[in-house]
Amino acid sequence: MNSSIIRYILGQVLKIEAILMLLPCLVALIYQEKSGFAFLITLVICGVLGLAMTHKKPQSFVFYLKEGCIATSLSWIFLSIFGCLPFIFSGEIPSFTDALFETISGFTTTGASILSDVESLSYCMLFWRSFTHWIGGMGVLVFLLAIIPLTGGSHINLMRAESPGPSVGKLVPKVRYTARILYIIYIGITVLEILLLLLGRMPVFDAITTSFGTVGTGGFGTKNDSLAGYSAYIQWVVTIFMILSGVNFNAYYLILFRRWKKAFNMEEVKYYFLIIAAATSIILINIHNSALGFFDALRHAAFQVASIITTTGFATMDFDLWSSSAKTILVLLMFIGACAGSTGGGIKVSRFVVAVKTIIKELNSYIHPKSIQKVKIDGKPVDHEVIRSINVYFMTFFILFSASVFLVALEGKDLTTNFTAVAATINNIGPGLELVGPTQNFGGFSTFSKYVLMFDMLAGRLELFPLLILFHPVIWKDLMAQRKLKKSGKV
Amino acid sequence: MNSSIIRYILGQVLKIEAILMLLPCLVALIYQEKSGFAFLITLVICGVLGLAMTHKKPQSFVFYLKEGCIATSLSWIFLSIFGCLPFIFSGEIPSFTDALFETISGFTTTGASILSDVESLSYCMLFWRSFTHWIGGMGVLVFLLAIIPLTGGSHINLMRAESPGPSVGKLVPKVRYTARILYIIYIGITVLEILLLLLGRMPVFDAITTSFGTVGTGGFGTKNDSLAGYSAYIQWVVTIFMILSGVNFNAYYLILFRRWKKAFNMEEVKYYFLIIAAATSIILINIHNSALGFFDALRHAAFQVASIITTTGFATMDFDLWSSSAKTILVLLMFIGACAGSTGGGIKVSRFVVAVKTIIKELNSYIHPKSIQKVKIDGKPVDHEVIRSINVYFMTFFILFSASVFLVALEGKDLTTNFTAVAATINNIGPGLELVGPTQNFGGFSTFSKYVLMFDMLAGRLELFPLLILFHPVIWKDLMAQRKLKKSGKV
Repeated sequence: MNSSIIRYILGQVLKIEAILMLLPCLVALIYQEKSGFAFLITLVICGVLGLAMTHKKPQSFVFYLKEGCIATSLSWIFLSIFGCLPFIFSGEIPSFTDALFETISGFTTTGASILSDVESLSYCMLFWRSFTHWIGGMGVLVFLLAIIPLTGGSHINLMRAESPGPSVGKLVPKVRYTARILYIIYIGITVLEILLLLLGRMPVFDAITTSFGTVGTGGFGTKNDSLAGYSAYIQWVVTIFMILSGVNFNAYYLILFRRWKKAFNMEEVKYYFLIIAAATSIILINIHNSALGFFDALRHAAFQVASIITTTGFATMDFDLWSSSAKTILVLLMFIGACAGSTGGGIKVSRFVVAVKTIIKELNSYIHPKSIQKVKIDGKPVDHEVIRSINVYFMTFFILFSASVFLVALEGKDLTTNFTAVAATINNIGPGLELVGPTQNFGGFSTFSKYVLMFDMLAGRLELFPLLILFHPVIWKDLMAQRKLKKSGKV
Repeated sequence: MNSSIIRYILGQVLKIEAILMLLPCLVALIYQEKSGFAFLITLVICGVLGLAMTHKKPQSFVFYLKEGCIATSLSWIFLSIFGCLPFIFSGEIPSFTDALFETISGFTTTGASILSDVESLSYCMLFWRSFTHWIGGMGVLVFLLAIIPLTGGSHINLMRAESPGPSVGKLVPKVRYTARILYIIYIGITVLEILLLLLGRMPVFDAITTSFGTVGTGGFGTKNDSLAGYSAYIQWVVTIFMILSGVNFNAYYLILFRRWKKAFNMEEVKYYFLIIAAATSIILINIHNSALGFFDALRHAAFQVASIITTTGFATMDFDLWSSSAKTILVLLMFIGACAGSTGGGIKVSRFVVAVKTIIKELNSYIHPKSIQKVKIDGKPVDHEVIRSINVYFMTFFILFSASVFLVALEGKDLTTNFTAVAATINNIGPGLELVGPTQNFGGFSTFSKYVLMFDMLAGRLELFPLLILFHPVIWKDLMAQRKLKKSGKV
């Protein structure tokens, strides 16, 4: 195993994190907050460690899927461990477990919080919380790919491990340019939302943090009632941008280069909009009553549907109080998730589209056992390997999900809480139902359960395998063997 | 499509049902119950219709998987529709929907009841309810295969459509003898349990019906408190026989022919016992307290675990009152289910074993992308086609399950009720939690929900595809085309 490249990438990631922490420092300066020092200290730690780790160039820049997966998972774990230090240093979230939970929840764009009173945090901490969403949304390794020249051509493996969806489409032949284009689109959408929110007279700080939470499909708010207190206009803007952030970014690339027809014919995106429309309509009928007029009901239904399917997790209403039919729809949406290649989580619409088509193909094979059929998406046959990996993904998800529910259940909370807590974390949504409903928080879980849920958040964001691979005995044997060799001076 | 063979098989099934109804008639004679006439009338209807349908021999005895699936699903639907008539004729379950629900629940060995007071039924009805479990447990088509000479060699397709598990192992080269051996083992176990229950001084009627419910892994009891009122000895006997009925019947075949080593090395069976031991231990620790001594707690834990994993559904305690950790374990066991090739339902242990091995293989492929590995069960590589079908099974199950929960949720019951009602029916268990807990019943659901759950019971028993295929448009086009041809006199 090429462990020197992993060390090198981790070092680069820490250096980037150090640079990113300049922003909350700036916020602290503006608001004259002492907590800013917590960022300064962490910044220095990250910087020094990062420089030390990248000082020695790796022996080789070539790496394979294995190294790509390990580098990715470790990057996310490093990012989160160092990213939670400011919360601890400032004393605003003194417990390490809680601070780590909050940070992993941030980077993985989950938005599940252990805080009961968000508003008591300082501005720089609130900013950092929302900023982690934005960093995690597109992925820090994609960012790395965009800026540092990794040669060898095998670093598509890094992107493959970090990007959501069953298969990674390179927009352009060079990974580096693909990564840059993605980030340009990402920044563009974010800036546009900030401007539109400012137009609705939202305070600058709120507009920026809300946009980070929306475009990264994160869900951390800066107010205790999430977005319930803002105007209808602002809620609609956020609804639209949540939906836009859940679209496969390839669509925007195609639009950018004026390939309209192809952009508007993406099958996954069509089904995505169809599901949103259907779910919103059913919930609208369900919650619309004398107390809640048609337009208000429509706004709340659309907001909550968009928030859940894109796995953002903002709320304008306590949907835990809705009827069980409406809640069931939301729970089902949790699993569907957004489009592949978006910033959203969940299983992804494309996986479901392929799944349904595979089932239809299976039924056909009962009728015409000898005919050979191919599952097609966007008119093109889907590679056999992709279908296989989607199948395995479903099975792995199913088993990991069940195991997590089992582990969380050990502390004896009610079934709905356990089920939706796991669903809300593994799908990177944020709020669930009952004890983890939109007006509640995850602070009531035991330390053990919190670590299970942190694992789920990371597993969900990295699409299971890159994280699971860290637990493969071969990896550990490999590392031990290398360490032994190093010690005996043979390398 | 060879629709004449389907007609012929359905006719045979009705004839068998007519003969089987002689038994409840006999019970009615013994207990001098008027309700016996309801069976006599149904018997005549089934007999006449069956004779009419089998009068004309089919043009050809050859049929393929498609015909096998259709014949199987329609057989089960016919069996249930005609099997529910005695309930209606006697007025003991006057509603058609309820009577059909109860009968489908019986034949599919689910054991979910719409009755709040089981003890008010007459003896012959109680007998028939339990007897449907026994008939459905091994399958009526397997019985048909054992007795009627279907030539052509393609009738393995019938068995494949009806037998539980990812692949059908023919015990001996001839399907007919395989079916006979299975039925001999089945009858042997049933008789043995009846004898052991009689030894524990259980009344004869109770011993027979309880054995039917146990060996068929059904779960209909003849008492309102299920098996709570019987002695510890009886409860242990039932526990052991539930577990035995959940074992792959191939193991008994091997034991019968003294191939001990092979019998005791079946991987699936080993994991099955391991899961039972683990689940019982955890629940034992969980429910054991000052009020409930060690041995009583062990008995209740073992009974409930065996009842749920084998998908029987008997109860000796209201487990809905247990802690949520214990309940979560039971809910997870619902999905695992019994061994393939047993009378139990659920997803089946073997599918999970293959799933876990596939996931491990996938992880290995990340580390050694070029190495070719095979998933092995019992030391033999599993056929690629079997793995693929298991993958598709999981996806189909996942989607069908979600769709059912959604449909049932429309009437607004709580999430746990909806979730466990679908889990308990699609996995052919019987009781769930909350409103469908072991002391409750399914009578409170709307007619629409009841039909959804009936569909789930049949889909679960027939392992999804044979039933789903009935809804394939090609089948309907085919039938319409044939009818047209017939009308125009060309055939």
